[in-house]
Amino acid sequence: MQRYVSEVLGTFAIVFCGTGAIIINQETQGAITHVGVAMTFGLIVSAMIYALGSVSGAHFNPAVTIAFTVAGKFPARQILPYIVSQLLGAVLASAALRYLFPANELLGATLPAGTGAQSFILEFILTYFLMLVILNVACGSKEQGMFAGLAIGAVVLLEAMFAGPICGASMNPARSFSPAVVSGHLEHLWLYLVAPTIGAVAAVFTWKFLTKPQAVVTATVPAECEEPA
Amino acid sequence: MQRYVSEVLGTFAIVFCGTGAIIINQETQGAITHVGVAMTFGLIVSAMIYALGSVSGAHFNPAVTIAFTVAGKFPARQILPYIVSQLLGAVLASAALRYLFPANELLGATLPAGTGAQSFILEFILTYFLMLVILNVACGSKEQGMFAGLAIGAVVLLEAMFAGPICGASMNPARSFSPAVVSGHLEHLWLYLVAPTIGAVAAVFTWKFLTKPQAVVTATVPAECEEPA
Amino acid sequence: MQRYVSEVLGTFAIVFCGTGAIIINQETQGAITHVGVAMTFGLIVSAMIYALGSVSGAHFNPAVTIAFTVAGKFPARQILPYIVSQLLGAVLASAALRYLFPANELLGATLPAGTGAQSFILEFILTYFLMLVILNVACGSKEQGMFAGLAIGAVVLLEAMFAGPICGASMNPARSFSPAVVSGHLEHLWLYLVAPTIGAVAAVFTWKFLTKPQAVVTATVPAECEEPA
Amino acid sequence: MQRYVSEVLGTFAIVFCGTGAIIINQETQGAITHVGVAMTFGLIVSAMIYALGSVSGAHFNPAVTIAFTVAGKFPARQILPYIVSQLLGAVLASAALRYLFPANELLGATLPAGTGAQSFILEFILTYFLMLVILNVACGSKEQGMFAGLAIGAVVLLEAMFAGPICGASMNPARSFSPAVVSGHLEHLWLYLVAPTIGAVAAVFTWKFLTKPQAVVTATVPAECEEPA
Repeated sequence: MQRYVSEVLGTFAIVFCGTGAIIINQETQGAITHVGVAMTFGLIVSAMIYALGSVSGAHFNPAVTIAFTVAGKFPARQILPYIVSQLLGAVLASAALRYLFPANELLGATLPAGTGAQSFILEFILTYFLMLVILNVACGSKEQGMFAGLAIGAVVLLEAMFAGPICGASMNPARSFSPAVVSGHLEHLWLYLVAPTIGAVAAVFTWKFLTKPQAVVTATVPAECEEPA
Repeated sequence: MQRYVSEVLGTFAIVFCGTGAIIINQETQGAITHVGVAMTFGLIVSAMIYALGSVSGAHFNPAVTIAFTVAGKFPARQILPYIVSQLLGAVLASAALRYLFPANELLGATLPAGTGAQSFILEFILTYFLMLVILNVACGSKEQGMFAGLAIGAVVLLEAMFAGPICGASMNPARSFSPAVVSGHLEHLWLYLVAPTIGAVAAVFTWKFLTKPQAVVTATVPAECEEPA
Repeated sequence: MQRYVSEVLGTFAIVFCGTGAIIINQETQGAITHVGVAMTFGLIVSAMIYALGSVSGAHFNPAVTIAFTVAGKFPARQILPYIVSQLLGAVLASAALRYLFPANELLGATLPAGTGAQSFILEFILTYFLMLVILNVACGSKEQGMFAGLAIGAVVLLEAMFAGPICGASMNPARSFSPAVVSGHLEHLWLYLVAPTIGAVAAVFTWKFLTKPQAVVTATVPAECEEPA
Repeated sequence: MQRYVSEVLGTFAIVFCGTGAIIINQETQGAITHVGVAMTFGLIVSAMIYALGSVSGAHFNPAVTIAFTVAGKFPARQILPYIVSQLLGAVLASAALRYLFPANELLGATLPAGTGAQSFILEFILTYFLMLVILNVACGSKEQGMFAGLAIGAVVLLEAMFAGPICGASMNPARSFSPAVVSGHLEHLWLYLVAPTIGAVAAVFTWKFLTKPQAVVTATVPAECEEPA
């Protein structure tokens, strides 16, 4: 139960702050700027990982939960309650923003600026690299784990920064689901449910390949900062 | 006595740099930008935690002191001297800024851009999540503690970024008290004393629930990056 | 093989996100701003170091691979496959961006804003300091190694920030090679292949001097935070 | 000798990147923005601390060297060679920038935007807090030391951000000395030599008070996150 509440809280915080930044930027004629919106998304993810990572693993994202399960690092029977918790937190956040800013039309919903295919490919690549970083730092050395919150937040920040103006840089079905449903703009929602999910799952196979023990190769290639043979 | 001086210094630094950024931004026709103001607030909080955390615990905020006491992590008889120290540091900072920038009207006072209710709810939510992060990282594992300064500064930065244009993103009664008193703009001060305080206290109950030992549940849900049973 | 795939992936991510930020900034009339482009470059380097550093050493840059070899920290027979992997990753990224943004002329190619000599000197200095930081943090103490990703990403971010408007702040032959080749703008490419490489190699000699054991000198100069004799 | 070369290199990097950002911002009609200039200053300080801290202690600033000596943490006979190294590195950086940007008038020299008294007080306060953070993180616990580069860089970034438009936010006599001498604008130089130095020395006395062992007081005030008696 604590894990589910943690997922509700973390996803609420990400959607409330992140899409809140988009909404308030619109309501104040760009006071926050796109740079400020991207920083908000990256930093709230980073902060929530440090705060709640030890409680629920800090997924806050159905694509991440599904990919962890495919990777064999999360029990399949927990997928449904995790995703329900994430969607619940996201919808509560969008509902709170609707109450606070009733005049806002889109509530931060993600919509393609160009073609759907362009945004689909972008969301696939963005979430692929996000999940690749998550798997490597969360399942790597103790030192990598310490910096997991920073590295994952950095990916969210930079991907929201450079790709946000084209595809919205969702990388998270829950983050796209709630403003679409609460604002009634469901027209491109399927794209933001499908592309991040298959991007995250694709990263699992790359990660498995990269971390498969290969004793012979690693023995003959010395690491940097050790004397070569 | 060292602890009180530490609280005076840290709160002085936060109010001097943070509201100083707002004032200098106004005096220079927006040279710093809202993004720069939010970065200033977040980074000074982060730096002061790393510098003074080992001396006084680095509260610098009456709402944080009260919430730590409610959480049973701070002795009630220290509340008054801590809050007096925080208010003293804040008022000295506003007085120094008044001396340096005598033409500035508001001295960085927090005022609602929209309705009072809107800003009250926002300040409640902002400080709720700030205190939730503080409790989890300050009272969590050793590794979480190492990154406490970064995580807490990140929350201040991002909340100042996205909510600043609407409610001022105070999250701290001392930060709102001093420019209001020194500039004479007391009209909405009560809001910034009450909402952050109850928001911080509300986070204590969530944190207690999240960290309550529940042996049965955690035993059946394996953590990520361990093989599922 | 895992190491080569890691170099392909990391260099793909850096070129896709970094030059993607330049392209999308152009396509959206400056929505990302130069500050956002510089942040994208710095943060993707930082994230890829934390994610893939343990697999391949996280070079992602032919100048870094050559300099590590000159420093005696990387086997000479691995230079060619590493550089081929880096160029492959970079070209795939530029090709993907060409497909996604067919109307973009330059694809983020680096071109001198002023004279070639000015940009040559800047690229030399930028990569000299980048490699000096890489060598000191990657081959230093365990604590320096933990912060390697942050320190190296910070250098890329700040050098892209301040020097980008003059020379493009490549610091990486692979990052300049791929948009030049894919877009057909090869006119100044030699500069961005030569200057970063000799800048990185020059840093090796400074690093060797700085870290040469000199027992007599260090014994007579006490470190800060220890009592002087 | 290694220590002196390290101080030359670090101070060169800070002045070359930091004042280079100011110069290139002027030459490109504000492409970098004030936010970008402040980020450049903070990040280069942070990176140089992680890269060279283990070689020379990473002062890069005559005010810091003098304050460390007053604190009893640095041998007095090393002050002169350290300051000469810092000034040499800074002058070489300004000379290189003069060569690269011959049309630039000020080379990033610090000049008061308002009265000299206003900038004097600001530089005093800025360097006081910078040195307070340096002393606490560099001479504190092992964990504080690990984050020293981040905390010190954060203070430089945020102080350059909020106070730069008024006083230039030098905090460093070497950083003000070199552009003033190379550009010939010596008119306010004394201010930037004196105010940071006495501000840094003032912080030493505060730090000594804060860290003086006081067994009785600390024994009766429990730390946060331990059960109160």
